[in-house]
Amino acid sequence: MKKHNFSAGPSILPQEVFQKAAEAILDFDGMGLSILEISHRSKEFVAVMDDARAIVKRLMNLGDDYEVLYLQGGASLQFLMVPFNLLTTDGKAAYTDTGTWASGAIKEAKKLGNVDVVASSKESNYNFIPKDYTVGSEYDYFHCTSNNTIFGTQMKEFPKVDTLMVCDMSSDIFSRQIDFSQFDLIYAGAQKNMGPAGATLVVVKKSILGKTERNIPTYLDYSVHIDKESMSNTPPVFAVYASYLTLKHLEENGGIAAAEKKNNEKAKLLYDEIDRNPNFRGVAAVEDRSFMNVTFTLTDESKKEAFDTAWKAAGISGINGHRSVGGYRASIYNAMPIESVQALVDVMKSL
Amino acid sequence: MKKHNFSAGPSILPQEVFQKAAEAILDFDGMGLSILEISHRSKEFVAVMDDARAIVKRLMNLGDDYEVLYLQGGASLQFLMVPFNLLTTDGKAAYTDTGTWASGAIKEAKKLGNVDVVASSKESNYNFIPKDYTVGSEYDYFHCTSNNTIFGTQMKEFPKVDTLMVCDMSSDIFSRQIDFSQFDLIYAGAQKNMGPAGATLVVVKKSILGKTERNIPTYLDYSVHIDKESMSNTPPVFAVYASYLTLKHLEENGGIAAAEKKNNEKAKLLYDEIDRNPNFRGVAAVEDRSFMNVTFTLTDESKKEAFDTAWKAAGISGINGHRSVGGYRASIYNAMPIESVQALVDVMKSL
Repeated sequence: MKKHNFSAGPSILPQEVFQKAAEAILDFDGMGLSILEISHRSKEFVAVMDDARAIVKRLMNLGDDYEVLYLQGGASLQFLMVPFNLLTTDGKAAYTDTGTWASGAIKEAKKLGNVDVVASSKESNYNFIPKDYTVGSEYDYFHCTSNNTIFGTQMKEFPKVDTLMVCDMSSDIFSRQIDFSQFDLIYAGAQKNMGPAGATLVVVKKSILGKTERNIPTYLDYSVHIDKESMSNTPPVFAVYASYLTLKHLEENGGIAAAEKKNNEKAKLLYDEIDRNPNFRGVAAVEDRSFMNVTFTLTDESKKEAFDTAWKAAGISGINGHRSVGGYRASIYNAMPIESVQALVDVMKSL
Repeated sequence: MKKHNFSAGPSILPQEVFQKAAEAILDFDGMGLSILEISHRSKEFVAVMDDARAIVKRLMNLGDDYEVLYLQGGASLQFLMVPFNLLTTDGKAAYTDTGTWASGAIKEAKKLGNVDVVASSKESNYNFIPKDYTVGSEYDYFHCTSNNTIFGTQMKEFPKVDTLMVCDMSSDIFSRQIDFSQFDLIYAGAQKNMGPAGATLVVVKKSILGKTERNIPTYLDYSVHIDKESMSNTPPVFAVYASYLTLKHLEENGGIAAAEKKNNEKAKLLYDEIDRNPNFRGVAAVEDRSFMNVTFTLTDESKKEAFDTAWKAAGISGINGHRSVGGYRASIYNAMPIESVQALVDVMKSL
């Protein structure tokens, strides 16, 4: 039996991606070589890198004023690269603190300069998205996290700010239609909706770079990676290829619009059961509920053993909550079929 | 026909690695899930990470005073991490400049502090390894590059220095028996002898860390990655797994001693032909010739078309020289069978 994989990340990807990735490891593109042993400068891989970057632009409906990069180091390295590239030495940046990763981003920016936390939900263990704040032009940039994987909250709207807008979209990128051109810089670890672990996406408006007068280390400088078309050093070839397959699959299956429709249906199915079933309670504020990571707890802890036994028997995996929240977390990313969500709901109904 | 893959990197790996890696993409370890969709904190992947690190220590014959890390960003990010972790703000570091990558490392260190280039072969386009230098205790550390992929030179011995010794072994790690305990820090991009692109190995003596008083960004801090056992953020799961398979294959096939014997035979076969055949000339100084990357040129350029046609017809790929050297470069890493080297030698003989 194929598992119902609710892992928070690395997470489920389309089955077709696994099939094609496995084939490429044995023989890539008819080269008679594995994708693991070819030069990143071979014309075959350069085409993959170029196509992957082009698909990102098409999916986001962005023009030539934006550049798409595939880097390494995950969102964690972006926590550092963003201030290195955008924060002037005597300037300051505005951050929202909406969870573990947001606070990680704040910590790194503070090592380089001045940071104001303009809004936070830390006091209530990050169970809502703060909305009542303004960000003026005195800031070099504003940074937010669109979806908080651990706590199950998601920004449904983005503020209008009088400075550059930077967003960590690691856990909900390509899951819903938004106006991506409202952002000046978007980054995301690939390992939720856009590929396996090991590749990091950066989408950046070229005109915002080169203004901090910092002596930026080469690997941390977006301009270098733009000039070298993401081949400043050896890229993570296989992770980029698997991400390319994932994005191509998304584009060929109706793009973000179709994914959003499916994601809304899956989220409604699961949240409706949480709200209906007296055995469960949602963790996040209703209006801020994430459509990617659904967090919930049992109302009666004595039913834990019965519930855990039941979902394991149903072939469900990866729904234990993060230690800082407890309870359960069902991650229902783009590639998750509604049948798997239904399988979980059926178990919940049976409790 | 399977190609004879002389690519400089990413490069040939054992066929068994491709087979097992492809299987794991369809079903990893009997989990009913792809290795691309499982949590990096699953017990199955934690075991892979732990095993890979343990194999590195066994192969290098190092004790508990060393830590093994799997990171991202390649050697290029190490160019930056080394000075961040080891160079005091008012101290200085000694570097040898033996090629493109060595000079890249120097450039990054200079962004953080004082650097003396204590030896260089730049004036002769890096065709030899400088040997006549001393490094005193006034330096925070000494940095060298053991093998220069582009120019085909290799350090046959390492100097005795009165400070910490740091070595970039990206292109010849695990290819020969050396006393690894003479180094305080070793790093290597995985994509030659130890796996596909996307993982970076760091082996570091714990006692050398924590002495610069710099405010090190989290991702750049070796101590953080040691504390979190290379899981400070999501590691490049698949690249680590493929590296684990590669190192396991090495260990099960006689370890470094057996690899070295094979590498010596391959190098002798090819260099003997270069020296015997009047159509070819070696690029590197004879005593510094790399046993991983064999660089050579035609003595008569009018024979280029005939030679290129012949090796292509023989199923050989990846032997065009780097643009900064010209001619040819045959990379004969651990996984390269002697039969492929013989195929190249046969083509050379036929010219």
